[in-house]
This record gives sequence, C-alpha cells and structure tokens, in this order.
Amino acid sequence: MTKWVYTFGNGTAEGRADMRNLLGGKGANLAEMASIGCPVPPGFTITTEACTYYYQNNKAYSPELKEQVLNGLKGVEASMGKKFGDAENPLLFSVRSGARVSMPGMMDTILNLGLNDQTVEGLAKASGNPKFAYDSYRRFIQMYSDTAMGVDIHKFEAVLDRVREENGYKHDNEMTVEQLKDVIAEYKKIGIAEGKPVPQDVYEQLWGAIGAVFGSWMSERAIFYRKLNNIPADWGTAVNVQTMVFGNSGDNSATGVCFSRDAATGENYFYGEYLKNAQGEDVVAGIRTPQQISKIGNERRHLTLPCMEEEFPEVYKQLCDIRKKLETHYKDMQDMEFTVENGKLFMLQTRNGKRTGLAALKVAVDMVHEGLITKREAVTRVEPGHLDQLLHPMFDKSAQRDVMAQGLPASPGAAVGQIVFNAADAEQQAAEGKKVVLVRVETSPEDIAGMHASQGVLTARGGMTSHAAVVARGMGIPCVSGVSDLRIDYAAQTLTAGGVTLKAGDMISLDGTTGQVMRGALPLRDPEMAGDFGEFMGWVDEIKHLVVRANAETPKDADTARKFGAEGIGLCRTEHMFFDPSRINHMREMILAKTEADRRQALDKLLPYQRNDFVQLFKIMEGLPVTIRLLDPPLHEFLPHKLAEQEEIAKELGVTVEEIQARTAQLHEANPMLGLRGCRLAVVFPEICEMQTRAIIEAALEVSAQGIKVVPEIEVPLISSKKELEICKKIIDETAEKVFAEKGQKVEYLVGTMIELPRAALLAGEIAEIADFFEFGTNDLTQTTLGMSRDDAGSFLPKYVEKGIYDRDPFQSLDTNGVGKLIAMACKDGAATNPNIYLSICGEHGGDAASIMFLNKYLKGVSCSPYRVPLARLAAAQAAVKAKKA
Amino acid sequence: MTKWVYTFGNGTAEGRADMRNLLGGKGANLAEMASIGCPVPPGFTITTEACTYYYQNNKAYSPELKEQVLNGLKGVEASMGKKFGDAENPLLFSVRSGARVSMPGMMDTILNLGLNDQTVEGLAKASGNPKFAYDSYRRFIQMYSDTAMGVDIHKFEAVLDRVREENGYKHDNEMTVEQLKDVIAEYKKIGIAEGKPVPQDVYEQLWGAIGAVFGSWMSERAIFYRKLNNIPADWGTAVNVQTMVFGNSGDNSATGVCFSRDAATGENYFYGEYLKNAQGEDVVAGIRTPQQISKIGNERRHLTLPCMEEEFPEVYKQLCDIRKKLETHYKDMQDMEFTVENGKLFMLQTRNGKRTGLAALKVAVDMVHEGLITKREAVTRVEPGHLDQLLHPMFDKSAQRDVMAQGLPASPGAAVGQIVFNAADAEQQAAEGKKVVLVRVETSPEDIAGMHASQGVLTARGGMTSHAAVVARGMGIPCVSGVSDLRIDYAAQTLTAGGVTLKAGDMISLDGTTGQVMRGALPLRDPEMAGDFGEFMGWVDEIKHLVVRANAETPKDADTARKFGAEGIGLCRTEHMFFDPSRINHMREMILAKTEADRRQALDKLLPYQRNDFVQLFKIMEGLPVTIRLLDPPLHEFLPHKLAEQEEIAKELGVTVEEIQARTAQLHEANPMLGLRGCRLAVVFPEICEMQTRAIIEAALEVSAQGIKVVPEIEVPLISSKKELEICKKIIDETAEKVFAEKGQKVEYLVGTMIELPRAALLAGEIAEIADFFEFGTNDLTQTTLGMSRDDAGSFLPKYVEKGIYDRDPFQSLDTNGVGKLIAMACKDGAATNPNIYLSICGEHGGDAASIMFLNKYLKGVSCSPYRVPLARLAAAQAAVKAKKA
Repeated sequence: MTKWVYTFGNGTAEGRADMRNLLGGKGANLAEMASIGCPVPPGFTITTEACTYYYQNNKAYSPELKEQVLNGLKGVEASMGKKFGDAENPLLFSVRSGARVSMPGMMDTILNLGLNDQTVEGLAKASGNPKFAYDSYRRFIQMYSDTAMGVDIHKFEAVLDRVREENGYKHDNEMTVEQLKDVIAEYKKIGIAEGKPVPQDVYEQLWGAIGAVFGSWMSERAIFYRKLNNIPADWGTAVNVQTMVFGNSGDNSATGVCFSRDAATGENYFYGEYLKNAQGEDVVAGIRTPQQISKIGNERRHLTLPCMEEEFPEVYKQLCDIRKKLETHYKDMQDMEFTVENGKLFMLQTRNGKRTGLAALKVAVDMVHEGLITKREAVTRVEPGHLDQLLHPMFDKSAQRDVMAQGLPASPGAAVGQIVFNAADAEQQAAEGKKVVLVRVETSPEDIAGMHASQGVLTARGGMTSHAAVVARGMGIPCVSGVSDLRIDYAAQTLTAGGVTLKAGDMISLDGTTGQVMRGALPLRDPEMAGDFGEFMGWVDEIKHLVVRANAETPKDADTARKFGAEGIGLCRTEHMFFDPSRINHMREMILAKTEADRRQALDKLLPYQRNDFVQLFKIMEGLPVTIRLLDPPLHEFLPHKLAEQEEIAKELGVTVEEIQARTAQLHEANPMLGLRGCRLAVVFPEICEMQTRAIIEAALEVSAQGIKVVPEIEVPLISSKKELEICKKIIDETAEKVFAEKGQKVEYLVGTMIELPRAALLAGEIAEIADFFEFGTNDLTQTTLGMSRDDAGSFLPKYVEKGIYDRDPFQSLDTNGVGKLIAMACKDGAATNPNIYLSICGEHGGDAASIMFLNKYLKGVSCSPYRVPLARLAAAQAAVKAKKA
Repeated sequence: MTKWVYTFGNGTAEGRADMRNLLGGKGANLAEMASIGCPVPPGFTITTEACTYYYQNNKAYSPELKEQVLNGLKGVEASMGKKFGDAENPLLFSVRSGARVSMPGMMDTILNLGLNDQTVEGLAKASGNPKFAYDSYRRFIQMYSDTAMGVDIHKFEAVLDRVREENGYKHDNEMTVEQLKDVIAEYKKIGIAEGKPVPQDVYEQLWGAIGAVFGSWMSERAIFYRKLNNIPADWGTAVNVQTMVFGNSGDNSATGVCFSRDAATGENYFYGEYLKNAQGEDVVAGIRTPQQISKIGNERRHLTLPCMEEEFPEVYKQLCDIRKKLETHYKDMQDMEFTVENGKLFMLQTRNGKRTGLAALKVAVDMVHEGLITKREAVTRVEPGHLDQLLHPMFDKSAQRDVMAQGLPASPGAAVGQIVFNAADAEQQAAEGKKVVLVRVETSPEDIAGMHASQGVLTARGGMTSHAAVVARGMGIPCVSGVSDLRIDYAAQTLTAGGVTLKAGDMISLDGTTGQVMRGALPLRDPEMAGDFGEFMGWVDEIKHLVVRANAETPKDADTARKFGAEGIGLCRTEHMFFDPSRINHMREMILAKTEADRRQALDKLLPYQRNDFVQLFKIMEGLPVTIRLLDPPLHEFLPHKLAEQEEIAKELGVTVEEIQARTAQLHEANPMLGLRGCRLAVVFPEICEMQTRAIIEAALEVSAQGIKVVPEIEVPLISSKKELEICKKIIDETAEKVFAEKGQKVEYLVGTMIELPRAALLAGEIAEIADFFEFGTNDLTQTTLGMSRDDAGSFLPKYVEKGIYDRDPFQSLDTNGVGKLIAMACKDGAATNPNIYLSICGEHGGDAASIMFLNKYLKGVSCSPYRVPLARLAAAQAAVKAKKA
C-alpha cells in the first residue's frame, strides 16, 4: 500500500528534510524540525504523489488516502488531547500547500479549519476570548469561501468595509463580538445566495480544503510562476494539515518571519519582523507595519518601533537558540516562521532563505570563513543567475542624489525607469522597449508579470518580507518597499513624496540597496570585481573544469571579456566587422561584383581592415586563444533594402539602382536560415575565404613579431560533411602557405568547425578526423533540430512553453532531450576518431547555467557573451561539484 | 606487391567477369571470354586501382606499374610471335578505357598503336597491303594527336577534306598510297607546328596512350556523364591494351556490333550491324550506313542491303555459336563487338547489353519462360527508372499520322516538341519550360546535356548503335536515327524531308518505336498495363516485402494510384483541397478571423467540402488504407500577395484591403519552413484540427454505412515531441468521440505522425508510445538535417554535387549517411517501444529506387506519387532480392 500521509510532532516525525520531493519543502522541514526538538505544532503531510494521483485520475483521491488522513488526524487528536469538531474544546487545523520549491504567495492556505456554529462557541469558552473566537470564525469563512468555494472575495470585504464605515473603525480588530456575529451571518447569506455555503461538517471542510490546495496548483498565477521559474507542472504540491496555534489570541501572542542572517545583504545578524496579536498572513500581506525582531535590525533599518528582543525577551532568547540550532543543522541561512500563542513559541516553518545575489555571495563566503561549509559547498550556494545582480551597473557614487523618499531596502540594486502605476502598463510599455519602474501601494500575486517586466518596484506599504520584497528578490530586480511617506493616486496617475509630485511616464530612480527613492534618472556605473566577489570567483576557478571563453569581436568586447575572467575568445564573428560604415560599401561592392576578378578587387580593399581587427584582438588577448569564424550570414543581409538607401549606395558605388535591386532579388531566399551561407559561401566564392584567412595569418605574423604568442583558430561555419570541411581547409591551408612564403615567417594555427547542423552532429566521427576543434553552434543547431526559426517562433513558442511541450524556451536553455542528445553523440563520435579534439559550445546556451550543467560532462569549454562569463564560470564550477558527487 | 596488370588471351586469363570493379567491365569480360574459349586477341588490363593511384599521386604512375606492363607486353609478343616496334612485322595494340560501368562514347580509345615511320613499312610488307598500312598509320596519328597530345582534330580533317576535294573523292578509302603518305607528312607538320609531334618511340606511344585514357576519366564530358548517371568519380577507369586485329585490312575483313536479342524491343533474334573493311569506330561514328548481321534484322527494319548471314555465312555461323555460348554463360542479353580480319573472327568485347525499358521487360519475361533465369533474377533485370518509359504516354493509335520520313527506331517511345537544331538551344529552351525535340545530322558526346533536356532526338545519320541511339536509350528518351531522307540546314535553321520543310520552333512528333517522323503534335494516350508488364509486375509483388502506397488527394490521383497498383493512399495532403476556387475564400475567411468564434464559423463552411473529399477518396480506395495528413503549410500561403487579388478578395469577403495586408504582414515569416505550420497550427488553433477530424470521421461513418470498410489514418505533421502529439491526439480523440455520440455509430481509426524533424527522429522511442504509425517526411527531414532549403539550394547545390560533397542531389535520392542514419535510429527506437508501429516514408524519396534499396530493411512501407508506384514496387522487389542474398 502506498504511504500517502506522514505525521510529525512531539519530538518525532515520519518524514525527513531530504524527503522534499515527496513531502514538499514545508512538510519535509516541519518533519525535520520536529525530529531535532523544535517546538512544532503536531500535524501530518499529504504527499505530492497524492496530488499527482489526483490530476492523473480526473481529480479523484486515492481510495487509501481517506483512511490514512483519518489515522493521521486521530494521532494529532491523541497528542493534543483535543477532538476535531468537538463542540467544547475543538481541535483546529491550518491547511497549507507545500511544493518541492517555495512558491511564495502562489498557493492557497486555509486557517482555523474546524470552526462551525457549534465549535466556535466551544473555542470562545475554552479560550475565554469570544472576540478572538468569532474573529477566527469570520476569517475562516472568508478564506474558505474564497479558496475552497470560489466565492468572490470582494463581497466579503464589502461587508467589512460597511461595518467599519458605519462604526468609524480604522482596523477590523475594533469590532465587537456582536458585530462579528452579524458579519458572520452576512457572510453565510452570501454563501447561500451563491449556492456555495461553507460546510458545517468539519470533515467536509477538511476534504474541501485539501481539494482547494490541490486545485491551487493549477491556478493561473501558479502556472505563471512555474513558467517564470521553470518548475515542471507534474511535481505537484503536498498538503500540510497542522494544529492551529494562534498568534492573534491576545497581546501576549504574536506571529513573525525571521532570517538567520540578513537576506538582503547577507550580514550575519538575526533579522526578522513580527506583529503582535496577528495571524501569519497579516505579516506577509503587509497591511500593518511590522516590528523588528532584534535591536540590531532596528539599527540597520533606522527604525524605532520596539522590537521583540525588548517586548518578548524570553521568547526572543528561545528563538535565538533555534536560529543557531537550525543554521548549524542545515548549514545554510534559514528563513523561519513562528507564532507565539499566549507567550509560548511555536515554529511553523523553516527553509533555506531566499536571498539576493549580494547576500548569497556574502553568506557563502562568511560560512567558509566560519568553518561551516567548504569552498566546494560555497560555490553551490550562489545561483549563477544571481551573479547578474552583482555585475549590473550601480549608481555612480559621485552623482548628486535628489532623494525624495526613504523606504526599506527590500531588494538591492539600482533601477532607473519611467513610472507606471499598474502591472498591465508595465508589461505593455516594456514590450514596447521602455524601461519602467512599477509603483504600487502594495503588490499582489496578480502583479507578477508586471514586476518581471519592470526595472524595479516601489511600494508604499509592506516590510522586508512583504510580497513585493520577496518576489523582487527572487527575480533579482531592485525593490524599495514600505515608503510610508509615499502617496499614490491611481486615478490621477501620480505619486507624491517629500513635497514632489511625479506623474506616469516621469523618470524615477530606486536604490534597492539603501532604500532611497530619487526623482529623475541617476547615472549608472560598472560594478566592483574585488572583495568577496573576487575571493569567491577564485574558488570557482579552482573548482571548475570547463574553459570559459567569451564571444567578442570588438576591442571593447574583448576588454570586457578579460575583465570578467574569460580565458580567451571562443567566437569572433567576422561579419560583424563588415557592418562598420567604413567597410560596408566595400562589402557591397564585393557582393555586386559580376566576376571573380571584380570580387577579388573589392576583397582586397577589405583585407587591411580585417587584418587590423585581428591585430587589435590578438594584442588585447595577449596570447589567450582566439577563435575566428569565417563569414557566415547570407550575402543579402549586407545589401540595402530601402529605395532611398539603394539610391545612395548606387551613387557611391557607381552602379545603377536596378543593378542593386536585381542582385538583391537574385540573392533573395525563401528560407535564408537554410540557404547560401556559412561554408557554402566559401565553396561557391573561395576568394572570400582566402581574403579572411590572409587577414588572420598576416595579423598573427605581425603580432607574433611583437613577442606575443598567437595561435589563431580558424573556424568554418555550417559544415554538413567531411568533404565540405576538406575543401575549406584546403583553401585555408593553401592561403596560409602562400602568406608564409611571402613573409618568410610561419605561425601555428588551428582549423576547426562549427557543429550547427544535425547532419554534422550525425557525421561528427568522420568530420573530427580533420578538425582541430568542434564548436557547437547551439542556436542554429536548435533551429534545425527542432525545425523552429528563432525569428518566427514567437507566434507559437509561448503557447508551447505554457502547454509544457517544452519545459523552457529552447533558445534560452538547451533542449537536452533533443539537441543535447545530438551533442552527446557528436562529442562521443568526435573524440573517438580524434582524442585531442577541443569540444566547446558558443551562443546563448554557453551562458545558461542549466545548459552548462548538462554539457559539463561532454565538453572542454564554453563561450558566451562577455557579461555572462562570470555566470558561466560559476555554473561550470557547480557542474564540477555535482559531477564529483555523482 | 600490388598486382596492377592482368593478362588475357589464348584460352586463358588472370581475370574473371566478377572482377569488374578492378578490371572495368570491358577488361573483366575480355578475360572471361578468353577463359571460356572465345577468340579474343591477347592483351592485358591495367586495373582501375592504377587509375585511382594516378589521381591520388598527382598524376604519377606507381613505380611497379612499368615493370608489370612490360611483362604483360612480353607475354603478348610471345603468344603472337611478333614484337612491339619490330620494323619487319610489328605487333600493334589498341588502347581502350574500361570503367566499372559502360560510359558509351565518353572515353578515349587509341588504335594501331606501335606504328611509326619504320614499322608502317614493315606492316605494309607483312600485310602485302601498303594502302591499309598507311591508312592505319594516318588514323593512328590523327587519334593519338587528338587524344594523347590534345591537338585540334579539325586541323587534320581539313587536310583530308582538301585531298578529297582536290581529287573529287567521296570516301577516304579512295585515296592512293602516295596521297596517304602526303597526308601523313602534313599531319606530322601540324604536330611539329603545335609543338606536339606524335612520338616515334613505340613505348613512349604506349605510356602516352595510357595517360590519355586515365586523363579522359576527368574530361568534361565524362564528368557530365557520371553526374547524370550517379557514377562516383573515385571509381576510376581500367586500361585495356590488346593486340590489334584489322577489320579494315581488305574486303574479307569487317567489324561490327551485335546484340544477342533486339535491344530496342527485346525480341529474341540475333540483331546487329557491321561494316566491311572498316575499323570499329566507323560503326559507332555512324558515318557509313552499316549492314545488318541477320536476314531477320533486315526484315524487322525493312532494310535491303546484303547481310552478314549472306556475305560471310561461315563467320556468321561462328558468331551465332558465340552468341548462344555467351548468353547461356552470362544468362543475360549480350552486347558484343567483333572484328573479322581476313575471314578470321575475333571477339573484342562482350557485356550485358543496354536496352530500353520495353526490351528489358521482354528479355526478363522471356528468359524466365525459357528457363534461363528465375523470377527473382528477372525482377533485378529491369531498372526501376526504365519502367517510366513503359508508363509514359504513347501516341494514340487512332490518330491520323502525317508521316514525313522513316528512320531507324533507335529508342522507343513517343516524343512531341518544338524543333531545335543544337544542344545549347535545347538546354536553354527546356529551362524555359518548353518541350523540344533535338534535330542533328549526328550527335556527339558534346550534345549530351542537350539530349537530356529534349523530349526526343532525331538524327539524319547513324545506325541503331550510333551515339544518338545508344545514349538516347540509356536516358530513356525516344530517338529516331539514320533518316537518310532528312536534309538539315543549320544556317537556315530548317529541316526538309518528304517534301516538307519545317523550321526551328515548329512542332514535330517522333515515334521511337516505329522510326516514324511526323509533322505537328500528335495526340498522346496512356500506356497499357497488361501483357508482359502485368506478368512481370505480378512477380514483383510476389517478391517485395514493402507496402507501396501513393500520395494522392484528388479522385483522379486516387484512380491513377490504383491503376498503377498502389496498396492504399500513404499521404493525402489536405491543404491541397483548400486551394480549390470554391473553398479558398472560406479558408481565407478563417485566416482573417479575429476571434475563435469567427474562425469556427468559417471552418463550418469548409467542413462539408472536406467531408465530401474524404467520402470520395474512401469510396475509390474501397477499403484500402488512407492516411490523411492534417493541415500543414503556414497560413500565409493561402492569402493573396498581389494588390489586385487582395482588392478582389477584400470585396468578396467584406473586409478592407488593409485588413488583408495587415494579417499578411502579421503572418509573414523570416523562415516559413521553420515557422508556424504543421501540428503547431493545431496547438495554436485547435479548431482547425477539430474540423478536419470531424470531416474525416463523418466521411468514414458515411462510407462505412455503405458497406465499405474504412479505417482512416489521421496523420499529425511536424511533430517534435511526444507531448505535442499527445495534445493533438487528444483533440482528435475528443472530436471523434463527439461525432460518434452524435451519430450513434463508431468507426475504427488510427492516429500517427510524420517524422520530419531531427528532434522527432531523436525522440522516436517515446513518441512511438502513442503513435499508431510513423511516416518519415524525408523532404522536410532532409531540409532540416542538412540545414538546406529546397527552394534556395539551387544557388549552391549543383556546385556541391559537382565537387562531390554530396554524391547525388539529396532531395532526389536519400542522403543515407546523414538523414538515413536518423531514420535508422528512429525506426529502431520506435519499434522498441511500439512493436506494432507501421513505419513508412513519403515524398520524393519514396519513389526513388536507390532510397528504397537503402530503406527496405527499416520500413514496412513507402508512399510516392501515383506515376512512380510501379517503380517503387519494382525497387522494393529488387531490395528484397538483394536483402535475401546478403
């Protein structure tokens, strides 16, 4: 019989932290906490497999599940000495989702489950706090109706609003017991009117809640979040049914969220926020401004409200012990939720804390220094994608800051953009290419797509653990939250702070590291490479096996590449050099030439430019390898397509417009991606290949003569057979020999090929016989293997990712099943016939962490854009750690 | 030590018939004939490997070759009792090329080698025939200068012309010895003036001749012929050095070519032509009109010159015995060359005779009836490509024939076209889409490309074995040769015969089966399927394993397919049905629709048309399987691109031109081949798939109700993953269930997929789990695997075939190394997870014999255009025979 339910509580548990896939992150850690003696309210976890079963069986539960849930429930009743549905002293539950990975705010939760018209009275009596009991019942009906019954939440809020207004209340907690009872009566009427009353039977409530959690897995916002974070739909969610403890049962109660270190900066002090007399969702919702856990937290954030260390010193001490215990146990920064019920501390959750790139780096480096983790562990603690944050521009420190408001530094980094006031505008304007900053009173899960499209997020309300703060940190975008001074008028589309009013479209700057908000667009500057970053990247380079090079053509790119630690140039696209205004017309002259002789004449004019390009690159790279790809794109890309341009070029080149048009028409292709390009150009027009080879070899000789070792690597693109490479290699070798003879000097050089067509991958064994290196051009290889044009896929690819046909955009992250299989075959076959062959990839996937993880065991190197080099180095190190473990 | 030289003669030989790859066809058969006791002049063969060595070593001979040639030569001297270069009684040689396969007229030959100023006198004395000796010397100088020295042949002909004119001679053989000596003196002057005299040293002559034969392998015309016939360049040619025998040594000498059966019709009688007092090339050149070998030959051709049976009865009897011996030995129709020297018969060559498709079929069927070969052998005796000839239209027998001339029926079939008078015009006009008939006095190897471009060939001179006749038969195009009544005026661009004058561009009709030439364009009709053809195809179907279906959408195609023996429809391209004028606008309405509801409305209008299409197909196919592919092309293909059309459509559909243009622009794709098409349409617009499924299922139910069993096979195109097929299959299954519920009836149906993307082939194992069948769409699979657009490859593919990068156009014949490897993998993986899966291909390669030969072991079926079905059946049978042998 499958075990669908795992119990925990009372210092013991059936689950463990490493059962995250089965129990979800929350369930696994509840079990672990219970096992190591943390005060966890008892409960049980329904496995993710039950969720998968549910969706595979047309939303039906496994028959065995019912019995196991009831057994679990009986266990909790026994341990608590209370009965579920007991009219005198009822046992109440929270029902929470918990997937393998945290999906903050995405999943539904139901609290206070087990309350009905009878048990609420029992709760009132047993707690001696009727207001707390009826408020809990009200909250339960509202949550359950929304989550399990699908009733519009606004109908309930309208009732509350009316009661508040009628009585002039600012907060819900000002309501009297009678008023709460009236509210409950009205709530029930809404349910009846909608045909969706909340069941009085507590077991019916329980099953409804379990179904609601499973259902929330397939909610639109959950699907969107999964898409954004590449989480497969078939993982499913677990359900945690846990004894309720009440942070809202009086002023000796509280609830809070804390981090074992500062999640924004990584600094090693106890950071957290709590609310007195509140339930957990009140903290996350950001409606009330929370207080700090520790004095140092107040210091760091320049806050003045009393902190827990002062208000609950005993509980704070207990919490500090647990902080230490959990961090030592998990050897990572923890993100914990707790509740204090009448002075008694309960832990409701722990998990490895989400953190900014800055914090991840600092925590990793500090923990190595503290002896808590090894360097190998440390390199796995920073997400490669988060390095981006450290490499992205910062505000120039010398720039004058016109600070109009101060908020919480909720997610670090500098953001500059035009103000938008809702998520839809953010998405739309970003799609038009504008840089925007999203400004909201507070954010909610519906805003996620808009946040993702923004440079940064600014909110008037909410703490460091509010929705805006958590999500922005996850996305790696800057956020300033809780700017209490900020007034937003959605109708007028304006914001006001510090006496300044800005309207939609105005420029604004956010410093997510300090919490400052500035009018206008502040100047940005490059980030620092030293300190913790430098130390950490040193470990990365010690550990990784893959060589990381950069794609670069210009001296600027080459400089950047070296600054970011590139070990050479892996791809120099020579065609980029032809688009320079000083050269493009020679190129066009070559294309328009009617005879080989005329073509050679035009090529002779291009030669000095090309040679000089390579001289510069070789000098900057100072002996590091440089792979130079021969001309690749179809020739028509170089011709002007607009009449005005054609006329201008015609005049400059002394030809007629008709000639230009005729040649353009002649070169037109139905599918240029699959046309006359790559090495096909060299086969049809060998003189182009000759000129480029000459430029490379002459440049290499010139720079070698200056004492810099140069071994140029000449790369032939779009090969589909050995014979084709043979023909091109012959042109290259003969040209090189000719140059050597002319100059009376020789230089070593390599000849290799792009593998970017399926046929080349299939025949890699024989091609490798005459290639010094293979570089997988995974952009084109993806296009041909999947039969999918990157330029055209926009009309269907989003639908494909949405429907799960591809887990991720295959142009961003390697399609390991298809393209990856081809690469694996080609590497094996290539190395079999040529054991010394250098195997690498270039293109988008060379800078994608997941792709590098997959390719690590097949390749010797990757090449990516200069800005992604640190990411690729880190991903390579993580792959090496993983490979050693396996 | 490598053996480079193989001797033959005197009833023994070092080689054998099965050593064709090493000795070439001619050499292998000379050896075989010598072994079985035919009178073969002794000689030796230099292997094809020596040729390959020559080209791989920068045109140098292997050092061992010289010694082996000299040894071979000594052997011949010993056996003949003559010495090479002997001034008294010189031994002379012919030097002939001989590749693995016959390349008629393509390769150079040198006769009378060993003559010089001394030996010619010896030959004159020894033969007692000075005129013969000096004529032989003259011929030798002319041939050698042309072939080995590269002197312009016309300079020699000018000398002959002048002598003929000065003396009023009609034929060269009227020249006196003194005149011949003068001619020789002038020939030598030409050689000296050009700096290319013929060497007097006979060994120097021999090596020059061997080099010339090797050189002729790389001549332009040889390269063209190889390209046309898919012969790899690296096969090389052998060189046959053989004792000269002289058919021109007097009136008791002769030379001829004969076939053991009629090569044009296949009829079993001894057919051949000879010339008295002539050398072999005189027969082939077609300058003198040859005489028939046999009386029956005269009868069949309505000729009256005396035949060999009458003029050389003894020799004829010997030849008949040899005919019998060789045909029984080789069990195939033989094409033999012989020479009679002073009444003594010598066999110079035998080989399996080239024949027309008609003859191939008849010979194969007759030989089975004669007990000479088995049915399995018989099916290998007809080239699949030649079936074409039997299936191509014939002249309507009832049509009035305006016969203007009678010639030889040199290559059977009916040709209608506009007259052109040279090969270049033929090529150019054919490229413009015109049908042309090439009319020449005689053809030469330079005309091959023009012949290939023509519907038929008409020549004034030449027999059944003339260049025109042999080449036309090889190409399968009709030819009438030797129309002695025909006068051609190249300058005026006219031809005259039977009192009628036609000019270039006029229509003419040729009957290659009867030799008739008719003015105007005669009506054509479909060929017969019964008789020998029917019997033969019966054997084919007994032997083959592959199922052969046809690609067909229209009732006409389906009818043709059945007539040609298709076992079902393997590919019904539904989009072809949408281009019908009555429907295209509904299709456009669908594409222009802005909402799903509007799209559905337009689709509803298309539904009855589609349903009716399928009803018709199911009825015609009477229970044979029908595979229907869902909509495949990108939608923009259905929209008009010209303004006038757009305006018209806008009016008809009640939309603005701007709307049409906007939608067209929206649908525009950079690489439509790799864009929104195939199953991607079904994923994005499921309603299209629903409509098509409904049409198919409703039609199947309707036809089933009439008692015809229908199991429609629904095919999803452009699949790249299992999930994609799952999504499409779900739409299909749900629609089918809906129709079943509506109609209260069910019908069995299959759902399968095209495999036309490399990724689909790579993931075939998992895709097969839910597919009833795979059909490899090798057109698209070739485009994506090779990264080569069929529409655009014209700019480089010819160069690629020329340079040997691809042996053949990969769109015509499957790229077995690349695409074939993918198919083999996919078949293996697919069958592993789904042993019952039906594996087939469709597209161009389904009707290509070489592709079928390769695919036979992987597939269960092929599908091709209706006209290629017989070819595919035959190729499948040949593949089965070959597979059993292996």
